[in-house]
Amino acid sequence: MDHWISPEPTRFESEHPLFLCVLSNTDTASIPGISAAGKSPRLIDYTPAGDAELVTLGRTVCNAEPPMTDQSPTPAVITRAAMQLTGIPFMFINSGLKIIPSIPLLDVGAFPGRDIRTAQAVPDARKIYANALEMGRQIRKLSDLVIIGESIPGGTTTAMAVLQAMGIDGRVSSSNSLNPLDIKAQVVDEAFSKAGVRFGDMAHDPMGAIERFGDPMMPCVCGLMDGLKDTRIVLAGGTQMMAVLSLLDGLGIKGNISIATTKFVAEDGTASFVETVSDLGFESYIADPGFDRSRYKGLRMYESGVIKEGVGAGGAMFLAGLMGIRQKEFREQVELVCDQIL
Amino acid sequence: MDHWISPEPTRFESEHPLFLCVLSNTDTASIPGISAAGKSPRLIDYTPAGDAELVTLGRTVCNAEPPMTDQSPTPAVITRAAMQLTGIPFMFINSGLKIIPSIPLLDVGAFPGRDIRTAQAVPDARKIYANALEMGRQIRKLSDLVIIGESIPGGTTTAMAVLQAMGIDGRVSSSNSLNPLDIKAQVVDEAFSKAGVRFGDMAHDPMGAIERFGDPMMPCVCGLMDGLKDTRIVLAGGTQMMAVLSLLDGLGIKGNISIATTKFVAEDGTASFVETVSDLGFESYIADPGFDRSRYKGLRMYESGVIKEGVGAGGAMFLAGLMGIRQKEFREQVELVCDQIL
Repeated sequence: MDHWISPEPTRFESEHPLFLCVLSNTDTASIPGISAAGKSPRLIDYTPAGDAELVTLGRTVCNAEPPMTDQSPTPAVITRAAMQLTGIPFMFINSGLKIIPSIPLLDVGAFPGRDIRTAQAVPDARKIYANALEMGRQIRKLSDLVIIGESIPGGTTTAMAVLQAMGIDGRVSSSNSLNPLDIKAQVVDEAFSKAGVRFGDMAHDPMGAIERFGDPMMPCVCGLMDGLKDTRIVLAGGTQMMAVLSLLDGLGIKGNISIATTKFVAEDGTASFVETVSDLGFESYIADPGFDRSRYKGLRMYESGVIKEGVGAGGAMFLAGLMGIRQKEFREQVELVCDQIL
Repeated sequence: MDHWISPEPTRFESEHPLFLCVLSNTDTASIPGISAAGKSPRLIDYTPAGDAELVTLGRTVCNAEPPMTDQSPTPAVITRAAMQLTGIPFMFINSGLKIIPSIPLLDVGAFPGRDIRTAQAVPDARKIYANALEMGRQIRKLSDLVIIGESIPGGTTTAMAVLQAMGIDGRVSSSNSLNPLDIKAQVVDEAFSKAGVRFGDMAHDPMGAIERFGDPMMPCVCGLMDGLKDTRIVLAGGTQMMAVLSLLDGLGIKGNISIATTKFVAEDGTASFVETVSDLGFESYIADPGFDRSRYKGLRMYESGVIKEGVGAGGAMFLAGLMGIRQKEFREQVELVCDQIL
C-alpha cells in the first residue's frame, strides 16, 4: 500500500515527458508581509534563480545560501529529487526574472512584474503570451506529457487578485504557515480601487486581468498551453496554478489539462484548492511525500504548513509516482539532497 | 536522379530530430570590410535576430527589412523552407546577442563577443560552455539527432583566428563574393601580435584560443556537443563550424559528429572546407538547392558566391533530404518563402 499520489495516475502513459518550470519576479513580493519565500525581504528576489540553480546544479550560485523559509528548505529539494530519480528532461523558463541564474534557460523576453497596486502589473503580457505560444508549438513536437511548475515569490497575492477579477470565489494559499490573507486582501483591494474594478468585472477579459493584476508567470504558462494544444499537460502548483486555470476558458484554451500539487496545499484550510479546481472543471492530483517521518526537522515542518509548494514540487512528485517510485524511496532521496545542500 | 545531398544521408535514421541555431554578435563584425551579412554596417548587428525571426515567424520584427546582402536574401529563407517542409522542432539559442529577437529563445547567459584585436574576445567562454553543456544534457534526453547551425556576422574572421591559433592551415569562406581574406588576415595578425601568439601556439589550449580570438558561438556549440555526448550531431555551417571542429579534440569532445554545408561553401575556391574537414577527421555532407534554376535573381546570385551559408542552411537542407524531400520541391518552397518576405 503506497498511495502517495492520489488519485493514482493510472490513465497516464508517456514516452517523452518533459518538466518545465517558469521563473518570475514581481514587485508585489516586496510589499511587507506578502511573501515568506526567502529568509529576508532582500533575499526574496533571489528565490526563483536560487531554486533553478539548486534543481539543476545541486547548489546555489547567485547567492551563498539556498532559499529557505525559517528552517525549512525550498521545495526545490523535492523537485531535484524527482529529476534525479526519474531522469526526466527539464528546463527552466525565464519569464521576467530580476536575478538570472547560472544555468541554461528558455526565455520568453519578459520584464519582471510590477506592484499590482499600480494596476499595470504586466504591461508586456501579450508579448510574453505570444513567445510562450511559439515555444509551446516547438515543444509539442518533442514531448507527449508536459509538466509546468513555477517559482515566483508573491505569486499567491497576484493569484488572489486575478481570481477575484475573474469572479472566482477561491481562496489562495501561502508559503507562510499563518496565511496573511488579510494583507493580501488589502493589497488586492487597493489594486482594484486604483483600477476602478470590482469582483468579477474582468470575467470576459482574462488578458486584461493579467495585465492589471497578474504576474509574468501567468501569460507564459497560458501561452505555453495554447501552443501545446492537445499535448497532455499537468500544471504543477497550488493556488497560483489554480488562478491560471481560471483564465483558460476566457482565453479559448482547450486541452488535456490537469493539475498536481502537494498535500500541504490541498489540506490548507485557509485555501480552497480542491473545491475551486473541481468547480473550474479540472482534475487534481495530490502528492504526499510523507515528511512527517523525515529525519529533517525542516522537512517535518512542511507538515505544519510552512512553504507547502513551489518549483513544481507537486507535479515533480506526480511524475515520480507515475514512474513507479515509492514514497519512502522518494523521501529518502529528498533527504539526500538536503544532506548535500544544508 | 535527385542527389542534391551528397553523399546521400542513408546511414541516418532519426525518430526525434531537433534543429538548433546559435545566435551571436561580435564587435569583430564592425571592422570595416569584414562582413557582408547585412545591407549596411549599422544593420549587421540586426542580422542574427532578423534571421531567427524570419525562420520562426516568416517576417522580421526587430527591423523593417529582412537581412540582405546586395540583392540576395539571408539563408534564413532556406532554413525556414526546411522547417516548414519537415515540421522538425527547432529552437534558437541566444549566445551573446546585441539585439534580442521577438521569439522564444534558449539562453546560455553569454555577452556579445569583443573585437579580437583586443585579444580578449570571449572572456566568459567557460561560463557559456558550462551552460551549454548543461543544456545539451537535457536535450539529449529529447532528441536522437541534433543539427546545430549558427548566425554570427564576422564569424569567418574569428574562425580564421581560431584555426590559426590551433595550428590548422585551413582557409575560411565569406558572405562576400570577393572573399576579403587580406583584411581578415590583417585583423588576425593584429590580434596575434597584441596577444604575443603565433600560428599553432594554442594547439593545446582550445578554450584559451576561444577566449582570446574566438566568438561566443564557439563555446556554446562546443558545450552543447559535450553535453549531447553520443547523440548524433550534425554541425550545420561552413568554415565557422570547421573551426569548431578544430577545437573538439583538444577539448576532449568525442561523439557521433559530422558536418553539413552548402555547395556554395564547398565549391568556394578561396576556402578549403572539404579538405580541412577531411584532414580533421570528420565526414561532410554537401547540399545543393539548385538555385541556378530559381526564378529569383537573389537566389541565383548564391551561385556566384554571395552569402553562401548561414542560419544552418546546409544542415537544414540535409534534414529535408533525409526526410525524402526532392530538390525541386525544396527550391520551390524557398521561393514561396521569398514571395512572402520580399
